[in-house]
Amino acid sequence: MLDALFFPRSVAVIGASTKELSIGNRIIKNLQDFGYKGPIYAINPKGEEVRGLKPYASILDVPEEVELVHIVIPSKYVPMAMDDCGTKGVKVAIINSAGFKEVGADGKELENQVIAKSKEHGIRVFGPNCQGIINTDPEVRAYCNFTFTRPTEGYISIVAQSGGVAEVLNQRFSELGVGVRMYASNGNACDVSIPEVIRYWGADEKTRVILVYIESLADPREFMEVAREVASQKPILGMKAGRTVEGAKAVSSHTGGLAQQEIAIELIFNKTGIVTFRDQEELCQAAVAFSTQPVPGGNRVGLITNTGGPAIIATDELVDAGLTIPPLSDGARDVLKEKLYAAASISNPIDVLATAGAEHFRAAVDVLMDEREIDSVYISFVTPFFVDNESIARELVEVNKAGKKPIVCNLMTDKKQWADTLGILEEGGIPCYSFAETAAKALVAMTRYSELRSREMGEPRAFDDVDHEQARKILDNAREAAREMLTTTGANRLLEAYRIPVAGWRVVRTASDAAAAAEEIGFPVAVKADSPSIVHKTDVGGVAVDLKDADAVKTTVEEMLSRFETDEFEADDLRFLVQDYLPGGKEVIMGTRAEEGLGHLIMFGMGGIHVEVLKDVSFAVTPVTEYEARDLMMSLKSYPILEGFRGDKGVNREALIEILQRLSQMVIDLPVIQELDLNPIIAYEDRVCVVDARIGI
Amino acid sequence: MLDALFFPRSVAVIGASTKELSIGNRIIKNLQDFGYKGPIYAINPKGEEVRGLKPYASILDVPEEVELVHIVIPSKYVPMAMDDCGTKGVKVAIINSAGFKEVGADGKELENQVIAKSKEHGIRVFGPNCQGIINTDPEVRAYCNFTFTRPTEGYISIVAQSGGVAEVLNQRFSELGVGVRMYASNGNACDVSIPEVIRYWGADEKTRVILVYIESLADPREFMEVAREVASQKPILGMKAGRTVEGAKAVSSHTGGLAQQEIAIELIFNKTGIVTFRDQEELCQAAVAFSTQPVPGGNRVGLITNTGGPAIIATDELVDAGLTIPPLSDGARDVLKEKLYAAASISNPIDVLATAGAEHFRAAVDVLMDEREIDSVYISFVTPFFVDNESIARELVEVNKAGKKPIVCNLMTDKKQWADTLGILEEGGIPCYSFAETAAKALVAMTRYSELRSREMGEPRAFDDVDHEQARKILDNAREAAREMLTTTGANRLLEAYRIPVAGWRVVRTASDAAAAAEEIGFPVAVKADSPSIVHKTDVGGVAVDLKDADAVKTTVEEMLSRFETDEFEADDLRFLVQDYLPGGKEVIMGTRAEEGLGHLIMFGMGGIHVEVLKDVSFAVTPVTEYEARDLMMSLKSYPILEGFRGDKGVNREALIEILQRLSQMVIDLPVIQELDLNPIIAYEDRVCVVDARIGI
Repeated sequence: MLDALFFPRSVAVIGASTKELSIGNRIIKNLQDFGYKGPIYAINPKGEEVRGLKPYASILDVPEEVELVHIVIPSKYVPMAMDDCGTKGVKVAIINSAGFKEVGADGKELENQVIAKSKEHGIRVFGPNCQGIINTDPEVRAYCNFTFTRPTEGYISIVAQSGGVAEVLNQRFSELGVGVRMYASNGNACDVSIPEVIRYWGADEKTRVILVYIESLADPREFMEVAREVASQKPILGMKAGRTVEGAKAVSSHTGGLAQQEIAIELIFNKTGIVTFRDQEELCQAAVAFSTQPVPGGNRVGLITNTGGPAIIATDELVDAGLTIPPLSDGARDVLKEKLYAAASISNPIDVLATAGAEHFRAAVDVLMDEREIDSVYISFVTPFFVDNESIARELVEVNKAGKKPIVCNLMTDKKQWADTLGILEEGGIPCYSFAETAAKALVAMTRYSELRSREMGEPRAFDDVDHEQARKILDNAREAAREMLTTTGANRLLEAYRIPVAGWRVVRTASDAAAAAEEIGFPVAVKADSPSIVHKTDVGGVAVDLKDADAVKTTVEEMLSRFETDEFEADDLRFLVQDYLPGGKEVIMGTRAEEGLGHLIMFGMGGIHVEVLKDVSFAVTPVTEYEARDLMMSLKSYPILEGFRGDKGVNREALIEILQRLSQMVIDLPVIQELDLNPIIAYEDRVCVVDARIGI
Repeated sequence: MLDALFFPRSVAVIGASTKELSIGNRIIKNLQDFGYKGPIYAINPKGEEVRGLKPYASILDVPEEVELVHIVIPSKYVPMAMDDCGTKGVKVAIINSAGFKEVGADGKELENQVIAKSKEHGIRVFGPNCQGIINTDPEVRAYCNFTFTRPTEGYISIVAQSGGVAEVLNQRFSELGVGVRMYASNGNACDVSIPEVIRYWGADEKTRVILVYIESLADPREFMEVAREVASQKPILGMKAGRTVEGAKAVSSHTGGLAQQEIAIELIFNKTGIVTFRDQEELCQAAVAFSTQPVPGGNRVGLITNTGGPAIIATDELVDAGLTIPPLSDGARDVLKEKLYAAASISNPIDVLATAGAEHFRAAVDVLMDEREIDSVYISFVTPFFVDNESIARELVEVNKAGKKPIVCNLMTDKKQWADTLGILEEGGIPCYSFAETAAKALVAMTRYSELRSREMGEPRAFDDVDHEQARKILDNAREAAREMLTTTGANRLLEAYRIPVAGWRVVRTASDAAAAAEEIGFPVAVKADSPSIVHKTDVGGVAVDLKDADAVKTTVEEMLSRFETDEFEADDLRFLVQDYLPGGKEVIMGTRAEEGLGHLIMFGMGGIHVEVLKDVSFAVTPVTEYEARDLMMSLKSYPILEGFRGDKGVNREALIEILQRLSQMVIDLPVIQELDLNPIIAYEDRVCVVDARIGI
């Protein structure tokens, strides 16, 4: 529990300073100015009074209990201070001081000492190298932070890895006149983690929406677990920076190379139900709507407008994002026809006209609240000087109080001249936006959250037909041989152990064995030279396809033997893969790659130009459920090719979905697998077959 | 010249009213409150004094000259009022009254009367059904408009088809504390047009940037001509609404159906050098930078930051948009090493550290101004309480005064506590943004303008080898036969007249002629049943390909004849196209379509799944220069396939570029062509051939 961090009953500042422009002074000033409800103790060995507070030479001299300390002394003295805090029985230390792991090996060593002291004394550490926390709750008014923005009370809580970004978000809410509930920026995060903070706020009733800014994840699994749990109860809005790191999304033919943490974090957001943002302003503006409005039941929007252009812009934005603007029912149109001006437009958007008064807006919004085919209401409201805008605002607020469906409002006005109108709407809990785009994007985000929360992700399927014994043996053999890549035989057998279909195959050494193998497999066959020394088989003439009889196979193998059996190859090394030749199918590719601390990513794409030129691939974090496997496939732009179009019958998609799930189980069972590429898999209307597998361990 | 509109020496309001909440009162109040420099005359037949002004029963009673009138009386009286204005010698009438073409046929008739009166009396008309204009120039202070926002003096001029959007933009600048130069919203635009306003502002020295909001273009050609001329001198920032109109970009197999005005307007923006926006906030924020900063010489950005996360966000945004962040020269790094703190990061971005003072920022910005490989400077500046932020701001302003390279600043601060810092930067002409994304997008827009302005678009190539005589004959024949589609023969011959290569072909009626034709063309050939009654040849078995000898051709044609020569077909109707069969090439498609008032759009794409599934096509407005034809091709996602990849040699792209230019000339020479589809064109490494052409007139 982080009560002692966010609701500290007393705060001491170790490193309290008389210098106005020091952090040890600023934190005390912030606590005082913000109206902190508990006692503040200044620890200052020089014995100077700080901002009117009696100085103590040591934390041990403070006569009362101290729940939270700020430590703002040079890093090398911090472990010592931790000892004193332990003796004193302090519960949480916010270490603002820098000079820890961010400065290199020495700092890292110091940080390890702090972690050890934390465990030894049972003190939770927030930081080091951090800003701290803010809690606007009137019971505590804790501004345990050296920054400058003073939030008002609200329902939005912010946690950010970057203090700079946290402050920008906080500042924006302040400018917007929107309150904040709690705020945390934990710097190096050696103990109290972002997931822990999220879980705490998940249980905090007054936190209605959580904002998370991430640069990297220390423990992706912990993050996923907490985020999934909390996001199912209240919205988490997430932003990840660093997405253009060179090569992050570069797609190469080496499919294992496709995945990077940059991709992974947005995938984790999506998997756990966090709504992802790529723009801080959009994030803040959406948070405002989330903090006051109910979650929409679906993606169908009803619009009301008293002006032209801005409603068109809103329509563009909503439709672009996949929301729909359904026609109104006849019943609704009848009501509107009766209650609105004759020249009003009674379709969706409803144009009540610039001359519309409160009764017209009320009629329109009532109709939309009652329409079964409408999930949310968008209001485009310019304040003409010739109507009673305050009455309109009051009617809208009246309807909003019922909380039946979410409302967003694009209020176009001079905020000074129509301050009362704006005030009525804002106090009435209707989120107001100056621009159509902003209002629409907020509604899009709420709809997105509704979709994420209502997904039926299901559980990963456990396949009980896997031959674990065989799988273990294959990996043991590879380990014993100190191989980093499985042999063709090993890779194919591992797939077979997981009941992933592989095109009929034999690995042989001689021309006559090859011919016999081909007879068994059935013609036509392909023959591929198989040796660790030959990386690019095709380039050196090591591949022959569409061989139609035993003679052709024999001749081919003899010819390859004569070319490859030179000094460059160990005799033992050169084998031949004889394989069922599969023309006319569609090529797809799958891959997985281990990600530090995360497990594996799974990649899916169409083969050939689709992956190489068009970069049309999709990713998911394991474990992959059937829902996710299907989503992986359907999110490809080239999905219609798999589905079949223009008379083409497409491929057996259910078989591909099953393979994705089996792959997911394989890499979870066998985390030693680092990289796995199935390229290509040939897919037909009835069946699919892996043709080439590379597995690295 | 629109001087009388934007710099009126006197204004009369026909329909001046004593009612506070009427437009006839509001306009006078606005003129008075805004400090209009000329005399204002209230025309009120009831003889009531309006806002302290002596009433005149008629405009004819005004003793002095009247340059501009507002007309705010019911629409049916407007033509009569125009007569009075004519007698009086009024130069411009702003008709605010509604009830014209926007209300239907009667209103349209009334508007036509207004246009006639305008011509008869030589009065320029602004509107009707419009807001009016604003000019902040201290010489005139003309608020000839009934809206509510009072702009301060500035360098940004706004023209918008929607009064609502114009007001939102104006309001935003007001909130941002940024001035506006002139403002115009001309409603139905029956006389003074948006292009005319743009041309006028092009010549207005104090207008540094023009904002245009468009919903549709009355005269695209006029718009293009003016926009190109003005955009070459000063930036025009454009926004178009209505881009998701159902089907606007839906791609069907009927390639002519790809083009819509929704696409066309953004194409026109691009062709003429207007920077396109899809978000009003981005538009406004970019305008601020354009109004104070020089145009960057290229896309290479140098960044300076004193905080972490926000600089990462900026990097994402810049790199995503195609800007580059090059490494610094050794010389620059040496200077920075000497002048910055030891722990500072002297790469790009330069991290001067949170503790950096004025001298550090100055050193960094000086280095970037001197770097040859840097075109613009991005500053990420949070205001720590422990440094002298005002001095930093003063140094930045000092450098900015030289105007060497554009600067944008992401200023992260509390605008009240650091009002002086903000003030120094803003007065010093440095555009300041609260968010990294906004600052980055403004810089992206400036870089985009620089690229648009420096393009070498070239002139359309005039092909002198065209057989105009043959082209004319083909079209004459089609017209005489009252055909809406050219025959196969007509279409192919028209292409040949424009020297567009067509696969070897003959149209014949009998099996023996078909065999003879095939011998001439050379085997293999394809045979296609050719009749206006057969629309989907393939579906009814009317296509045979890869016929390798004369017998095969003969048999095929006989078989088709026996099937198709039934009562359904006129004997005369059924012909056979014998054609060179071209396997193994790459399919591309081209199309053109006539657009009302605009000329033609040209479409280019890869064939098959690329157009049908992946919607990977590009468009341009004719005339298409070589530069544009190349751009059409290179902007396809599948372009690498044409270029060749992974050993494939690609196709003769120069030949395709030439065909696009020849098509462009064809539809300009022959505007009667409504739709033209070349689908497919088969492209090889050496040559390209049209295989199927449909031309509608």
